[in-house]
Amino acid sequence: MLIFDVVNALDYAKSREIIISFISQIVERVGAGGVVLGLSGGLDSTVAAALATEALGPRRVLGLVMPSIFTPQEDVKDALEVAGQLGIETRLIDITPISEAFARSIPDYSPEYRLASGNLLPRIRMAVLYYYANKDNRLVVGTSDRSELLLGYFTKYGDGGADFLPIAPLYKLQVREMARRLGFPHIAQKPSSPRLWHGHTAEGELGASYEVIDQVLYALFDLKKPLAEVRELFGEVADFVMRRVRANLHKLLPPPSPDISAARRHV
Amino acid sequence: MLIFDVVNALDYAKSREIIISFISQIVERVGAGGVVLGLSGGLDSTVAAALATEALGPRRVLGLVMPSIFTPQEDVKDALEVAGQLGIETRLIDITPISEAFARSIPDYSPEYRLASGNLLPRIRMAVLYYYANKDNRLVVGTSDRSELLLGYFTKYGDGGADFLPIAPLYKLQVREMARRLGFPHIAQKPSSPRLWHGHTAEGELGASYEVIDQVLYALFDLKKPLAEVRELFGEVADFVMRRVRANLHKLLPPPSPDISAARRHV
Repeated sequence: MLIFDVVNALDYAKSREIIISFISQIVERVGAGGVVLGLSGGLDSTVAAALATEALGPRRVLGLVMPSIFTPQEDVKDALEVAGQLGIETRLIDITPISEAFARSIPDYSPEYRLASGNLLPRIRMAVLYYYANKDNRLVVGTSDRSELLLGYFTKYGDGGADFLPIAPLYKLQVREMARRLGFPHIAQKPSSPRLWHGHTAEGELGASYEVIDQVLYALFDLKKPLAEVRELFGEVADFVMRRVRANLHKLLPPPSPDISAARRHV
Repeated sequence: MLIFDVVNALDYAKSREIIISFISQIVERVGAGGVVLGLSGGLDSTVAAALATEALGPRRVLGLVMPSIFTPQEDVKDALEVAGQLGIETRLIDITPISEAFARSIPDYSPEYRLASGNLLPRIRMAVLYYYANKDNRLVVGTSDRSELLLGYFTKYGDGGADFLPIAPLYKLQVREMARRLGFPHIAQKPSSPRLWHGHTAEGELGASYEVIDQVLYALFDLKKPLAEVRELFGEVADFVMRRVRANLHKLLPPPSPDISAARRHV
């Protein structure tokens, strides 16, 4: 049901220009040598890598391909093809031995705690990305999009752990359209998945399609429509989305701390 | 040289009360079953654990003791003694096999990249802490203090990765005094160290003692004195501190993203 045409709510040429200049400026400002990012063979990391390459040139972008046991071979192939198309350097790092070391070392580990063990994977990737960032004086590019960030559909301090978020203002459907325009038609049509367990897909876990979710988010956060009105248009999904947004707000905010000003003494 | 008596700039009974009620409220508000934190046998984690235990009772606090190859046996002993004194449950998890798995899996790994490889350790600990947080519906207690947070003297998404920061408003010297008052005189006098490499101490790496650093921070951020004035009192340390504060501000802020409002189209 198309009520709000989210895909067409963006000037792609202009936003591409803005994002590219944002990336150049932030890398320049902190005096970094370049950037590093995880390449999953999926939509978001492909678009982020392509824009970073346009901004910095291929020699200043490093892509880490970090499959786990839940990564289909096709994703690895896609990730390496994207890197080839962009002309950027890559490292292929199978994180399975690392996740197995966690599994053996944590006395209460069980794969049955699917979320707990699944979340280890993006945190391992974050740690590897920062290894390269520290070693080479690079910034870590986060690849979350606006839909994921609003829903809190990412792992805190995992894929959420990055130095800047170039595609944070784009809804998932807009990232898809951007991928098409950047010359990645095959990647643009792949279903989104964090691949934290076998058969894991974003829309399966979320229980709604991005075609609907993005319209709800757009109505609530861009058009600032009241929840009641959005519920009339989209039903329960509106409540589900709002609940997720509220519950996950903490994931990108600085951790809260107590206000002890009443206990301060002037000396 | 004592110009500002930072230790006495705090009402300890009152701040203890405020922090305890903050911890109870946050755990209550999100409906968590309890908290989990890393116990290093050092100052900050001891004080954070003691206050969390006062707030929630010992049965809702889990302490993870996570030594690496750089952890002296004495720290492990101290951590377990603290847990015993508080009556909280612990797990002893040697993270060496995990850090070795990273070392073997990263093709460009070398222990000579001391900062890059050192930073893996707090990130591994963060991932283990969140494993328990996810599994048991606990919040992760961050143990950074005000001195470390202002200086950015912590690992981004490592020990900086937590759900709340109960001792964030206390300077290092105040945490020391708090440790004494909470009944941990032995811990209170241990030198601070992140233990990211052999012989690593905070004051060695920072190049100044917390007795001086805390006065500088207090003058700049509590008394809001201009840098020039603080420099007259403390010399170069004032500039060093200010440089660190500015350079590391990003570590606790949400990652920046581009403003593409000029590219949005109303549909």
